[in-house]
Amino acid sequence: MAAYTLFFGTFIDLPRTPADGKHELSIHHGALWVGYDGLIKGFDWNVRDEGDLQALIEKKEWVLDNGENKKSISSVKVIIAREDQNEFFFPGFIDTHIHASQYPNSGLFGSSTLLDWLQTYTFPLESSFGKSISSARKIYNQVVSRTLAHGTTCAAYFATIHVPATNALADLCLERGQRALIGRVCMDNPDICPDYYRDASPEESLSATQTTISHIHTIDPFGSLVKPIITPRFAPSCSTTAMKNLGQLAASYSPPLHIQTHISENKDEISLVHKLFPESKNYADVYDRFNLLTPRTILAHGVHLTKAERTLIQSRQSKISHCPASNSALGSGLCPVRRLLDSGITVGLGTDTSGGYSPSILEAVRQALLVSRLLPHTVPSDEEGKKDESQSQILSVEDGLYLATRGGAAVVDMANEIGGFDLGMSWDAQLIQLGYPASSVGWDGTKTVGSVDVFGWESWSEKVHKWVWTGSDRNVKSVWVLGKLVHSRRDVDVDGDCLEGLTSIWKSKSIMTAFGAGLLLAGWVVRSGGYMR
Amino acid sequence: MAAYTLFFGTFIDLPRTPADGKHELSIHHGALWVGYDGLIKGFDWNVRDEGDLQALIEKKEWVLDNGENKKSISSVKVIIAREDQNEFFFPGFIDTHIHASQYPNSGLFGSSTLLDWLQTYTFPLESSFGKSISSARKIYNQVVSRTLAHGTTCAAYFATIHVPATNALADLCLERGQRALIGRVCMDNPDICPDYYRDASPEESLSATQTTISHIHTIDPFGSLVKPIITPRFAPSCSTTAMKNLGQLAASYSPPLHIQTHISENKDEISLVHKLFPESKNYADVYDRFNLLTPRTILAHGVHLTKAERTLIQSRQSKISHCPASNSALGSGLCPVRRLLDSGITVGLGTDTSGGYSPSILEAVRQALLVSRLLPHTVPSDEEGKKDESQSQILSVEDGLYLATRGGAAVVDMANEIGGFDLGMSWDAQLIQLGYPASSVGWDGTKTVGSVDVFGWESWSEKVHKWVWTGSDRNVKSVWVLGKLVHSRRDVDVDGDCLEGLTSIWKSKSIMTAFGAGLLLAGWVVRSGGYMR
Repeated sequence: MAAYTLFFGTFIDLPRTPADGKHELSIHHGALWVGYDGLIKGFDWNVRDEGDLQALIEKKEWVLDNGENKKSISSVKVIIAREDQNEFFFPGFIDTHIHASQYPNSGLFGSSTLLDWLQTYTFPLESSFGKSISSARKIYNQVVSRTLAHGTTCAAYFATIHVPATNALADLCLERGQRALIGRVCMDNPDICPDYYRDASPEESLSATQTTISHIHTIDPFGSLVKPIITPRFAPSCSTTAMKNLGQLAASYSPPLHIQTHISENKDEISLVHKLFPESKNYADVYDRFNLLTPRTILAHGVHLTKAERTLIQSRQSKISHCPASNSALGSGLCPVRRLLDSGITVGLGTDTSGGYSPSILEAVRQALLVSRLLPHTVPSDEEGKKDESQSQILSVEDGLYLATRGGAAVVDMANEIGGFDLGMSWDAQLIQLGYPASSVGWDGTKTVGSVDVFGWESWSEKVHKWVWTGSDRNVKSVWVLGKLVHSRRDVDVDGDCLEGLTSIWKSKSIMTAFGAGLLLAGWVVRSGGYMR
Repeated sequence: MAAYTLFFGTFIDLPRTPADGKHELSIHHGALWVGYDGLIKGFDWNVRDEGDLQALIEKKEWVLDNGENKKSISSVKVIIAREDQNEFFFPGFIDTHIHASQYPNSGLFGSSTLLDWLQTYTFPLESSFGKSISSARKIYNQVVSRTLAHGTTCAAYFATIHVPATNALADLCLERGQRALIGRVCMDNPDICPDYYRDASPEESLSATQTTISHIHTIDPFGSLVKPIITPRFAPSCSTTAMKNLGQLAASYSPPLHIQTHISENKDEISLVHKLFPESKNYADVYDRFNLLTPRTILAHGVHLTKAERTLIQSRQSKISHCPASNSALGSGLCPVRRLLDSGITVGLGTDTSGGYSPSILEAVRQALLVSRLLPHTVPSDEEGKKDESQSQILSVEDGLYLATRGGAAVVDMANEIGGFDLGMSWDAQLIQLGYPASSVGWDGTKTVGSVDVFGWESWSEKVHKWVWTGSDRNVKSVWVLGKLVHSRRDVDVDGDCLEGLTSIWKSKSIMTAFGAGLLLAGWVVRSGGYMR
């Protein structure tokens, strides 16, 4: 492995929230380099062509990694985002709420809503993870494969109540190189949880959770990739003793452990909570009484939060995972994300597989945009909402992408480590390929990459809009976490963009003509011309 | 070309609306045959294996098409839906509302709503179709490629105001074999339409429309694939004279020509109509006054129709094209489809490219399901809607697929010709491939077909649900219109399922072992085993 990796091409990310709250794309063309530790060490947006790149390499006294001098502490490998194929680097997506164990049920929920869906589809599937560790491992491997293929570099996973299967998910994420929070699910209330699938007691909820935490702290002592997250399923499924214990457990670590649960997803669920916890002021207050609302708490959904709850959540600095595909598919409601943001709450996106039908955060972005555009047509859930807020609820493409990257990073309390291309951040990134313009491939839909049709006249901003609305995992060419390549689309020659791409480039006369012979440098090649402004 | 094509495997379609209105899948395993004219001549659901198939062929006195006896009037070619790859035949999708000319703008609308979107994004693009016929033809070819790849076998197209480009779209559909209604757009109101893009007068609206109708009647005299459709853009864009002329024009043919326009998409648009046509009782009444509400009229959207309008539309037997992706993306509203159906109105689905971001009817199905699940959270548009109708608005997967096939067929007034697998219907169909179960390909998401993960335990009904929620054009292996193969996925060997597939089958020892050597008959091969019940 080279000491440095030098990425060259177009880099697009979302700057931290600007003062006016209006997100815009940050688009740069040039070079960015990542160290052996996977962190971004520098960038130079004045690098426009192969000459500039060569000059940069000479100035840095780097040695090109041509396969012979791999052990050099100054060796560098070059990865190119090809302009002719409309490629760009984008931060990896962060899925702040996904039930790994529910993945095989994706797309199966009939016309059910939350509470009957849990009993009919979810609990039977989740309970099966206690029966065979090899079967559990296979399904979890598929989940990690799929989420990586969709560009998800970090996920907050709900597993099941089973310690061995949950530990296997942690092992897998570490092996495959996906950043993850791993939660063993706690659910011990016999009035709500089925006999065949629940913790036997509050003590078991606690001890099983501790066992999984120990395992994860053993396999990844510094939490460089995988961390435990305390996971009371949702208030109705937990005894008060269990919730109290779990709140104390989280606080007993320094820094305190992450916590994840659900809140205010569905109106019947909210009624159930009011019935089960008559002493609490509201749903959020239930968690607050057990010290489960912390700055490291991820609350999934929050569709119908009242103003009092928003104020409480904001004051505790707890975070919300917005799961629009799930909320629409289960008919839970339309989460007023803009109102949450205006309340000072940090929001990210979740797929909520399999309440959500897709493991793709790009799909979650689309659904977040769609739901935000339908909000003006809904019945507001509280008085405050009744004032006219027609256009103000709309999320832009840029807002959606912010939620999917920086927003998600803040939700998992890693705002300084992932979610963008800032100096010192981890290189958790995806190489997006929209493909050649339709005009250059004979105007035949079947010859392009995926479903995005670029016609050649689009600005980079417009290309990003097309990607968000019409893109898929087919546009995810490569994915890195902590500087390590963790996924490449199956038709992509993994090293095709650096050394091994050489031969095919030289064989392709049209490309040679287009880019000139001077582009072949000592051991690597720049496939794309300079960037036109 | 063989005289008959014999399709073997699983066939899924939606029966005509049952008495209780509750749609269910019709799932058959067996053989279905199509004549040289592209029509379904027969089926036999008792054909379970290669022996049964051979017996059927002998009984029918067919001669297998092995490349030598092609001209025989009794030659037959066999196409297989492979059970081991979870393949099935499904009726082709019908897109009842798509603006072919707007396709290059897919995904570009920022945060705009209908009226500003038209001025900012749409009219400038559409006007460019008057400048270069070759450019128009290229874009239209891309649209036909893409829609065919998504399984759309029939589309009701809006083109632009330009006769040559519109005629080129008709030519292309005929050449490529896609069933289509082709509409030259009429828009002559100078108060609404921009100077750079409108018909000069009502007379021009009429005469240009007549020219296109003549062209289409010349290239496809019997309308076997391509038919004209009279297309006043929407009431605000047309003078009353133009609308009157167009209504008369449609009625002057026998049978009357198809008509398509927009209705009640957006609240500002509705206000504009009330302002422009103060003498009309409502939006629907505007069209009715000019005899534009006929049994062959397709009204796109109908999101905010009043009860009086629904009654009028039902009484005229006009149809509604529901375009959920567009309605959500432009924030137009949530169309209460179930209420339209309950009013006795025929409904189909439209992509409304590029108000809709996707040319996929499968995506339209998904969005229709999602919108229907959010309807209980909306503000009803009229008194009648204020009663509690919580669950009653939900569309099931089966309802959505019905709208995409039989419903669409009824909307384009071809309910007896397309949309299902009834005897005598045209073979307008798609071969859907979900792929091998994840378990058989090493549990690695990158090795399966598309995004659908089949785990092996699913019923056919569950497989269809997974396809609807997680599928894409990647699952469309082949598409036929009127019996003719009009699209095959690029990685599919077009004849791979019959003659040319032979070699690879024999080379693959595992497949041979699985299916036995007896499966190779004289010139064709059955790749899949018998169907287990």
